[in-house]
Amino acid sequence: MTDVDLAFDEQEYIPAVAQDADSGEVLMLAYVTEEALRKTRETGEAHYYSRSRDELWHKGGTSGHTQAVEEVRVDCDGDALLYIVDQTGGACHTGYESCFHRTVDGETVGEQVFDPDNVY
Amino acid sequence: MTDVDLAFDEQEYIPAVAQDADSGEVLMLAYVTEEALRKTRETGEAHYYSRSRDELWHKGGTSGHTQAVEEVRVDCDGDALLYIVDQTGGACHTGYESCFHRTVDGETVGEQVFDPDNVY
Repeated sequence: MTDVDLAFDEQEYIPAVAQDADSGEVLMLAYVTEEALRKTRETGEAHYYSRSRDELWHKGGTSGHTQAVEEVRVDCDGDALLYIVDQTGGACHTGYESCFHRTVDGETVGEQVFDPDNVY
Repeated sequence: MTDVDLAFDEQEYIPAVAQDADSGEVLMLAYVTEEALRKTRETGEAHYYSRSRDELWHKGGTSGHTQAVEEVRVDCDGDALLYIVDQTGGACHTGYESCFHRTVDGETVGEQVFDPDNVY
């Protein structure tokens, strides 16, 4: 499916980082199956695999906050992906642009871009 | 150890993405144990856990290509970290600034910043 060999783990996942093409912000980290990667490449919109719901996950399918994928990169040992995306709305279900909107000390560093009560 | 609860997986790892503080480049994805995170915070230099060597990994300990950590962020569900770093040299053992220097189609998109033959 890809020219570069990918090292899916024993559960057939590979982690994928989404980065905003414009701001450079790291938006989220989620997991991808072979099917999710194929759907991403076929449709041009980011797909992941929801481990909690145990199903293919079209990002933004419910919220409208889709990610148009400009490029899919792979790391040197083939066991992680990087999606370069144009994010509609915010990536995080909490309303923040990025899921990484807190330091480990609990300080908020990110920007809230929508009110989740209006979306979900 | 941290104010935010972290969700280490059943192998006691949590994935950590390193992003260059200046360029915004996503440099690498690796795994962190509680000890690796503690060492990172104590020393200010990025530590990971090498799954292949099965040991604590001080990034750049051999090559000199250390990562000074400006901030450690955590995602909304506490199961992924983001290290914002000042990278000395390049992050990738192949000599590229980023481990994500190829598309999944095998096209090179990153920049080689050192000759690995001179480092390892």
